[in-house]
Amino acid sequence: MSRLLYIAPVRIGEDGAFERGVEEAARPENTVDLVGFTRGTEHLEYHYYEALTIPDIVHTVLEAERQGYDAAVIGCFYDLGLHESREMATQIAVTAPCESALLLAASLGSTFSIIVGRRKWIPQMKANVHHYGFGDRLASFRTLEFGVLDYHKDEAETERRFIEAGRKAIEDDGAEVIVLGCTASAGFYQQMQDVLGVPVIDSAIAALKHAEQLVEIRDRFGWKTSKIGGYETPPAYEIEQWNLREEYGADTITNRWRMASPVQAG
Amino acid sequence: MSRLLYIAPVRIGEDGAFERGVEEAARPENTVDLVGFTRGTEHLEYHYYEALTIPDIVHTVLEAERQGYDAAVIGCFYDLGLHESREMATQIAVTAPCESALLLAASLGSTFSIIVGRRKWIPQMKANVHHYGFGDRLASFRTLEFGVLDYHKDEAETERRFIEAGRKAIEDDGAEVIVLGCTASAGFYQQMQDVLGVPVIDSAIAALKHAEQLVEIRDRFGWKTSKIGGYETPPAYEIEQWNLREEYGADTITNRWRMASPVQAG
Amino acid sequence: MSRLLYIAPVRIGEDGAFERGVEEAARPENTVDLVGFTRGTEHLEYHYYEALTIPDIVHTVLEAERQGYDAAVIGCFYDLGLHESREMATQIAVTAPCESALLLAASLGSTFSIIVGRRKWIPQMKANVHHYGFGDRLASFRTLEFGVLDYHKDEAETERRFIEAGRKAIEDDGAEVIVLGCTASAGFYQQMQDVLGVPVIDSAIAALKHAEQLVEIRDRFGWKTSKIGGYETPPAYEIEQWNLREEYGADTITNRWRMASPVQAG
Amino acid sequence: MSRLLYIAPVRIGEDGAFERGVEEAARPENTVDLVGFTRGTEHLEYHYYEALTIPDIVHTVLEAERQGYDAAVIGCFYDLGLHESREMATQIAVTAPCESALLLAASLGSTFSIIVGRRKWIPQMKANVHHYGFGDRLASFRTLEFGVLDYHKDEAETERRFIEAGRKAIEDDGAEVIVLGCTASAGFYQQMQDVLGVPVIDSAIAALKHAEQLVEIRDRFGWKTSKIGGYETPPAYEIEQWNLREEYGADTITNRWRMASPVQAG
Amino acid sequence: MSRLLYIAPVRIGEDGAFERGVEEAARPENTVDLVGFTRGTEHLEYHYYEALTIPDIVHTVLEAERQGYDAAVIGCFYDLGLHESREMATQIAVTAPCESALLLAASLGSTFSIIVGRRKWIPQMKANVHHYGFGDRLASFRTLEFGVLDYHKDEAETERRFIEAGRKAIEDDGAEVIVLGCTASAGFYQQMQDVLGVPVIDSAIAALKHAEQLVEIRDRFGWKTSKIGGYETPPAYEIEQWNLREEYGADTITNRWRMASPVQAG
Amino acid sequence: MSRLLYIAPVRIGEDGAFERGVEEAARPENTVDLVGFTRGTEHLEYHYYEALTIPDIVHTVLEAERQGYDAAVIGCFYDLGLHESREMATQIAVTAPCESALLLAASLGSTFSIIVGRRKWIPQMKANVHHYGFGDRLASFRTLEFGVLDYHKDEAETERRFIEAGRKAIEDDGAEVIVLGCTASAGFYQQMQDVLGVPVIDSAIAALKHAEQLVEIRDRFGWKTSKIGGYETPPAYEIEQWNLREEYGADTITNRWRMASPVQAG
Repeated sequence: MSRLLYIAPVRIGEDGAFERGVEEAARPENTVDLVGFTRGTEHLEYHYYEALTIPDIVHTVLEAERQGYDAAVIGCFYDLGLHESREMATQIAVTAPCESALLLAASLGSTFSIIVGRRKWIPQMKANVHHYGFGDRLASFRTLEFGVLDYHKDEAETERRFIEAGRKAIEDDGAEVIVLGCTASAGFYQQMQDVLGVPVIDSAIAALKHAEQLVEIRDRFGWKTSKIGGYETPPAYEIEQWNLREEYGADTITNRWRMASPVQAG
Repeated sequence: MSRLLYIAPVRIGEDGAFERGVEEAARPENTVDLVGFTRGTEHLEYHYYEALTIPDIVHTVLEAERQGYDAAVIGCFYDLGLHESREMATQIAVTAPCESALLLAASLGSTFSIIVGRRKWIPQMKANVHHYGFGDRLASFRTLEFGVLDYHKDEAETERRFIEAGRKAIEDDGAEVIVLGCTASAGFYQQMQDVLGVPVIDSAIAALKHAEQLVEIRDRFGWKTSKIGGYETPPAYEIEQWNLREEYGADTITNRWRMASPVQAG
Repeated sequence: MSRLLYIAPVRIGEDGAFERGVEEAARPENTVDLVGFTRGTEHLEYHYYEALTIPDIVHTVLEAERQGYDAAVIGCFYDLGLHESREMATQIAVTAPCESALLLAASLGSTFSIIVGRRKWIPQMKANVHHYGFGDRLASFRTLEFGVLDYHKDEAETERRFIEAGRKAIEDDGAEVIVLGCTASAGFYQQMQDVLGVPVIDSAIAALKHAEQLVEIRDRFGWKTSKIGGYETPPAYEIEQWNLREEYGADTITNRWRMASPVQAG
Repeated sequence: MSRLLYIAPVRIGEDGAFERGVEEAARPENTVDLVGFTRGTEHLEYHYYEALTIPDIVHTVLEAERQGYDAAVIGCFYDLGLHESREMATQIAVTAPCESALLLAASLGSTFSIIVGRRKWIPQMKANVHHYGFGDRLASFRTLEFGVLDYHKDEAETERRFIEAGRKAIEDDGAEVIVLGCTASAGFYQQMQDVLGVPVIDSAIAALKHAEQLVEIRDRFGWKTSKIGGYETPPAYEIEQWNLREEYGADTITNRWRMASPVQAG
Repeated sequence: MSRLLYIAPVRIGEDGAFERGVEEAARPENTVDLVGFTRGTEHLEYHYYEALTIPDIVHTVLEAERQGYDAAVIGCFYDLGLHESREMATQIAVTAPCESALLLAASLGSTFSIIVGRRKWIPQMKANVHHYGFGDRLASFRTLEFGVLDYHKDEAETERRFIEAGRKAIEDDGAEVIVLGCTASAGFYQQMQDVLGVPVIDSAIAALKHAEQLVEIRDRFGWKTSKIGGYETPPAYEIEQWNLREEYGADTITNRWRMASPVQAG
Repeated sequence: MSRLLYIAPVRIGEDGAFERGVEEAARPENTVDLVGFTRGTEHLEYHYYEALTIPDIVHTVLEAERQGYDAAVIGCFYDLGLHESREMATQIAVTAPCESALLLAASLGSTFSIIVGRRKWIPQMKANVHHYGFGDRLASFRTLEFGVLDYHKDEAETERRFIEAGRKAIEDDGAEVIVLGCTASAGFYQQMQDVLGVPVIDSAIAALKHAEQLVEIRDRFGWKTSKIGGYETPPAYEIEQWNLREEYGADTITNRWRMASPVQAG
C-alpha cells in the first residue's frame, strides 16, 4: 500500500475544483490525499503566479516526504516545481501532468495535440514539450478560448468546445491522441473519447498513475531520481545556515494546507 | 488480475536464458507467462534475424490476444515488431524494452547512456532513441565488446565490463541514468546500481512494468492505441482473401512456442 | 552492362500493375527484370503486410545476388527490407523508392511535398523522411484519399486528384518539388509535371536510377555498403547452424517468384 | 540618461562579491545601482535556491519599475526569474546573463563553450542554451570543479583553472568563443582573453550591455516585450483580489534589499 | 564617438531608397555615413545578384576599416557578405539585418514572423534563420506578393499589405513579434506597431544598433570576432602574391562608391 | 553522349593539381573538359577567396550552358557558387562535391566522417552538412593539420595522415564511411579504402557521377531544378538593363579560362 498526495497548487475553497475523481484513479491498494493551499492564486495561467507558488509546492513535497507519503503529484499542466521537488526529494516520488501525459501518449499513437485554454499558455508548455523530447510528435496546440476558471462554468459549452477542438486536431492537424492540457479538464475525457474515437488523456490522472509506477519501481528495483548531476540535493548545512526553512515558511507549510478528506481509492 | 505474456523472440532451450526473474517483477495480482520459439535465431543482433522473427512475434501477440492475455512484452531491445503488433492488436497492450526503458529513464535524470554489446547494434538503436524523442538526452552508447550469447558465459567478467562501461558513461559522457540495452542483461542491474550510485534500468523489467501500466489504463480509462492514423488495423477481409494466416503460419504459431511454466509473480 | 532486378514486393497477377515502364527507365546498356510474388498481399499499406513480406524480399535480394544481378530495387515507398537487404548483401546494390527519391529531390529544389494515398501511411513515411535527414525540407504530405488499389481504377480521376494535391502542396505548403509517394503512381508524373511546372519525381524510377548509380560506383571505385557498424553481415555459420535458409524459405524463394519478361531497356 | 538596477539575487554582505566592476561597464550617460538581498542563499547552485529567490527577484524588478528604473539585470547565469519578470513588467527592460552572453557570442564566432563551476549546473544551463536556440553552436561545457563560493578564495588558482578549461574548450572541443557561465567569474575575462586569444565573455557585463540596448530601443523605437502570447501580464484585479502583493512580500521588498552605493559609470 | 558606415549594397541614384532615416537611429555621439554603389543591381532578390555584389561589399568594409570606421552595416536582409567581411576584418565590426533583427527579437517574444516581398526569398532566409539558431521560434514567413522595387511605389498599399500580413502572422501563425525582412521596409514599422500592438522590428535599424553595440564591447572589453576557427583571416602574403586587390578592384572600390551626405545622428 | 565541364575554381598552372583522373571517372559515353582560371587564388580555404571566385564560377557555368555542355561540376568542397549557378541555369545541371558526396554516402552507411585539411574549414562545411540534412549522420570532422597546397607536397606523408585520421574517425568517432572533404584529396581514396576497409568517398568523383545522373534524369524524365521558389531565375531584362554581363566580366569569362585538353573518358 502506498500513500500519495495530490497537490492542487492553488488557493482552494471547500469545494475545490480539483476534487473531481482524480483520487478514484489510484490503484485499489493505494490511498490518495488531496491538498490545496489557503493562500495564493486560484489558477496558474501566469508565470508570476507559478513563481509565487513553487516554494509552497516544494515545501509541501518535503513535508509529504517527512510524513511518509510515497509520492506527490503536482496538479498543474505547467509542471511547475517538478524539477525543484525532484532535486530536494530523496525518497518521495514526484510527478506532474504534462510530463506524465506525454510519456503515456507516446505509446498510444504517433502524434498528439494538446488542448489548452488560452494562447497565453502555449509558449511555456511548448517549451516543456520540446524539453521532454516530444517536439516532433506534437501535431498542434488547440485552444478553448477561455481561462481555467471558465472550464466548469458551463460544462456543456466546455464539452462542445473540447470536442470541436479535438476534431480539428485530429482532422486538420493529424493528431492521433488528444491530451487535455489543464487539470481543470477533469471530467471531460471520457465523453470526448467516445465521440472522437481516439484516446483522450486526462493529464491529472496520467500524473497519478505515473506516480504510482515510480513508487513501485523505487520500492522494488531501487530506481529513483539520479543524484549525480542535475538533481543533486543541496547540502543540509547550507539550508540550516541560511535559515531557509524558517525564512521561507517551510516549517509552517501545513498551516497553509487545505486538505480534502482522504479517500480510499478503487 | 491481468495476464501478461513475455515473449523471448528467439529460439530457446529448456533453460532459456531469459527466464531470469523478469516474471518476478510483475505486480502481485498479475501473472506472467514466458514464451520463446522452437525455431529461429538464438539472438537478434542482425536485422535479418529480426526480419525473420517479426512475423512470429506478431502472430504470437495476436494469439495471446485470442487467448485472453492482457499484454504482451517483446523481449528484445531492438523493439522489433512493436509497431506491427500495435497495429494489429485491438485489445492487447504491447510493449518492448527500449521504448519502455527510455520512458522510465526520462523521469529519473536529465541524461542517460545505453550499454550494449557491440557497435553493430548502435545505429538501429540510436535511430530508435531519436524516433522516441530522446536524442537530446542520450549521453552515449557504451559497448561491452561482446555479443548477446557472451553475456552469461562469465558473469563476473560481464559485471566487470558493465561497471567499467557505466563508470565511463557517468564520468566521461555525463550520464545520470544507465540503461541496459539488451534483455540478456538480466541479473546485473542491482549490483551495478549499488556500485555506480545512479539508477540502472533493466529494460526487460521496464517493459513488463510498462505493460502492466498500459493494461491498467486501458481497463480503467479506455486509453489504448489510437486506431486513427499510423496504427490503423488492416481490414479482416483482406487478411482472409489473401489467406495470410495460413500462408504465414499464424494459425500454427503455438506449434512454434516453447513455454516456460507460468509463475505467480510477487 | 549491368543486370537489375526490380522487385514488386506484392502478390501480382499476370498483368501486374508495376509493369508500367519502370524498366524503360534503365540505361540502355542495362537490363531490368521484374519480379513479384505468388503469395502475400496485393498492397503494403499496413505494417503487418510489410512484416510478412520482408523475409521474401531479403531472400529475393540474396537469390538475385547469387544469380549475378548487380542491383535490386525494392518497389515500395515504405522502403521495407532496405536495411535488412543491405546488411545481408555483400555484392549486390539495393535501393528503394523513398530514399532514392529524396536523395534526388534534394538537388532539385529547397523543399518537397510527398503525395500519398491515405493518412495511414504518413507516420511511417514521415519517420523515414526524418531518418534520411530531410525533415527540414519536407513541406508537407498530401493525400489522394484512397488506397493503393484505387490508383489505376479511374486514371483520369487519379490524375485530377494528383494535380489538385500537387497544386496545394506548391501553393499552400511551399513545395518546390513533388515526390509521388507510392510506386503505384507510375504513369502520372509527366502529365503532372507539365501542368504544375515543377519537377515531379516518380519514386520507382528514382530507385532504378539510384541502383544503376550504386552499381557503377561499386564497380569502378569500390564504393559499396560499409560493413563496419550497422550493416555488418551475420556470420554464415549461424545461419547454417540455425537452419535459417530452409526454415524461412530462402532456398525455395524462386518458387514464389512471378517474373515478367526481361526487357531490353533504352 | 538611463537608470539600471543590477540585482545580485543572493544574500550579500557589505562587501558583496558582485561589486566587482559590472557597474563600470555601463555607458557613461547611464547609472547603475546594485542591490542584493538580506535573506536567502549565498549562491544559487540548486534549483530549490532559485525557487525561493524568484519571487523576490520579480518583486524587485517591479519595485524598480515603480521607482523609475529603466532596466533590471538579474545577475545569475541560470537566468532565474527572467521570463516571470518580463511577463510582469510593462515598462522596465529585463535581462539576464546567459541569454545576453549567448546573443552576443553569436556574432563573435561560430561556436562557444561555457565554463561553469560544477557538473550539477549543466543540465539546466544546457536546457537554457537549447531553448535560446544555440544548441548547435555549443561546443561544450567545461567545469572548474568547484562551487560559486570558491571562485574568489584563491584567485590565482581560479585563473589557472579557467585558463586550463578554456584551452581544452578551444583545442579539444572546437570552441571559438568562451562564455563564463557564472556571474562570480567577474574579474577573470581579460586575463583569459589575453592568454587564450579568443573573446572571453563576462556574462554579467553582457547582461548589462544588453539591458542598455533594450532600454534604448524601447525609448526610441517602441520595441519592448510583446504582450500578445507568452508574456501577457496578469490582470491587476486578480493580483489585488488574491492579495498577492501583501501575501508574498511585494510591498515590503525594499526591506529585504541591500544596496551598494550608486556609481556614476564611465 | 564612433563612425559607422551603412552600406546599401545596390546601385543607387541620387535619391537612394535607403536614405530613409536609418542614420537617425544611431546613438547621438555616433556618426553614420551612407554608401551605395555606382554599379550592380538595384535590388538583391536573386542569389546571382548577391554573388556579383559580395566582393564590392567586402572591399567596402575593408576600405572602411582603412579609413577608420568603427563599424559597417550591410544593408540587405540576406546578410550577404557578412561572414566574408568578418573573416577579413580585424578591427571593424560588421553586422547585417537578419542576424541583428533576430538577436533582438529573441528578447522580445517567444516567436516571430518575418514579412518578405516574394516567396523567392524565403528558402535562403529560412536557411539563415535556422543557421542563426532561431528555427524553433520562427512562426512563419508571410509575403507581400511584390518585389523590393515595389515597396515604395504606393506606400499606402504597401502599408495595407504589411498590416494584413502582420495580422495573419499574429492571429493564424502565433507570432508575438514581427520582423520586416527587407531593408526597403524602412518607414513602415511604427505605424504597423501602433496598429498591431506587438513589436515590429525594422531590421535595418536593428543592424545599426547591433553595430554600435559591437563597437562598444570591442573598445571597452576587447570582445571582437574570434580569429581561431571559421573567421581566421587569410595571410597577407597570399593576397599580395595573387594580386587579389588589384585584380578584383579592391584598390578602386571608392570609385564605385556613391556617398550620401554624412548626417550627425541624434 | 553528354558533355561535362569540370571547373577547378582556382588559378591553375599548366599542370593543374586537379588533373588527376577525375575525368576518367565519367561514363564511357560522356566527355569531360577541365577548366581552371587564369586569375584568382590557388586555393579556397578562406571565404573571401570564395567570394572573389563565385562570379567567375557562375559565369563559367552560364558560358558552358551556352556552349552546349550538359553539366558543370564545381570542384571545391565548400560547394561555392552551387546555389547561384542553379538559380541562373535553365538547362545545364550543376553539382559540387560536398552535396554529391553526402548524397552518396547516405546510402553506404549510417554515419560518416569528413577529413579536411584545417580546422578553419570546418564551420562552413559543418553548416553545409546540416543544411543538406545530414547533421545527425555526421560522426566527426577530422583534420590533416595542413592546407590545400600541402596535400601533394609529400604524398606518402599525406597518405599516412589520411589513414590515421580515417582510423580515428572509424574507431573513436563511429564513422562507417569516410568522405574526403577537399578536391585536392584526389588520388588517395583507393589506398585508404584498402587499408581502412570502409568506403572512402573521393568527393570530386562523387560530384562528377552526380552530374551525369542529373543530366540523364533531365533528358529522360524532365527532372531539373525547380524554378518555383528559391531557384527562380532573375528576369533577363534586369540583367541587361543593369549591364551586368559586361560590368562583371560574364562576356569575357573565356579569356580567364585555362583549359586542360579534353579527355575521352572510360
